Amino acid sequence: MIELNFAKLDGLLPAVVQDIHTGEVLMVGFMNQEAWETTLDTGKATFFSRTRNTLWTKGLTSGNIQEVKEIRVDCDNDTVLLKVEQVGGAACHTGHRSCFFQKINADKSVSVIGEPVFDPKEVYQK
Amino acid sequence: MIELNFAKLDGLLPAVVQDIHTGEVLMVGFMNQEAWETTLDTGKATFFSRTRNTLWTKGLTSGNIQEVKEIRVDCDNDTVLLKVEQVGGAACHTGHRSCFFQKINADKSVSVIGEPVFDPKEVYQK
Repeated sequence: MIELNFAKLDGLLPAVVQDIHTGEVLMVGFMNQEAWETTLDTGKATFFSRTRNTLWTKGLTSGNIQEVKEIRVDCDNDTVLLKVEQVGGAACHTGHRSCFFQKINADKSVSVIGEPVFDPKEVYQK
Repeated sequence: MIELNFAKLDGLLPAVVQDIHTGEVLMVGFMNQEAWETTLDTGKATFFSRTRNTLWTKGLTSGNIQEVKEIRVDCDNDTVLLKVEQVGGAACHTGHRSCFFQKINADKSVSVIGEPVFDPKEVYQK
């Protein structure tokens, strides 16, 4: 079994999540050793929340879990790539398909790409 | 102009690099403010090397630079996605197209995906 290098970021490493069907990059989360092992064992993308300081299985609140279909590890074992089936069609807590919905234009202004798939007020009841 | 949040990782944030033609995720680097501004101003993917502690324009040694065609920023402004034209066809210092050439199998063993595009011994003269 591969040994990941969690030492570079004090016990964390970045995990890129990609839609297995479209190739769209949906989000980047961070994993600690427990999140990595939980992802391997359950097949559901699980991260370590830096803001809440806790293990976090993506979609537990919204229902938009990520079923892991393929796992890749990079050349120096310090970054993970998950190819997933995105349940509910949206990964972002804003309701957008991808968290990367802000496009930087040539003049450095920002454009929002695409429309939200769901209304976060309804999903999170906040 | 968008203000990125470099505070979560002590002045760095992850930057995912994706091939604009194939959608393949090629690598993940880290940027500090200077790397971000250099990338915006030059159109060449530039990172901060955590191991060498210096600014690093990808491909300066190998010739395999990354021409940035589109820049995306995520919902909380702490991760960047670069869609690039990968000059030379390979992003990884091992000669592989993508750094993510290690696939984790269901039994947790590792398979190498694909063949190197170039021979790193020839390119780096090491």
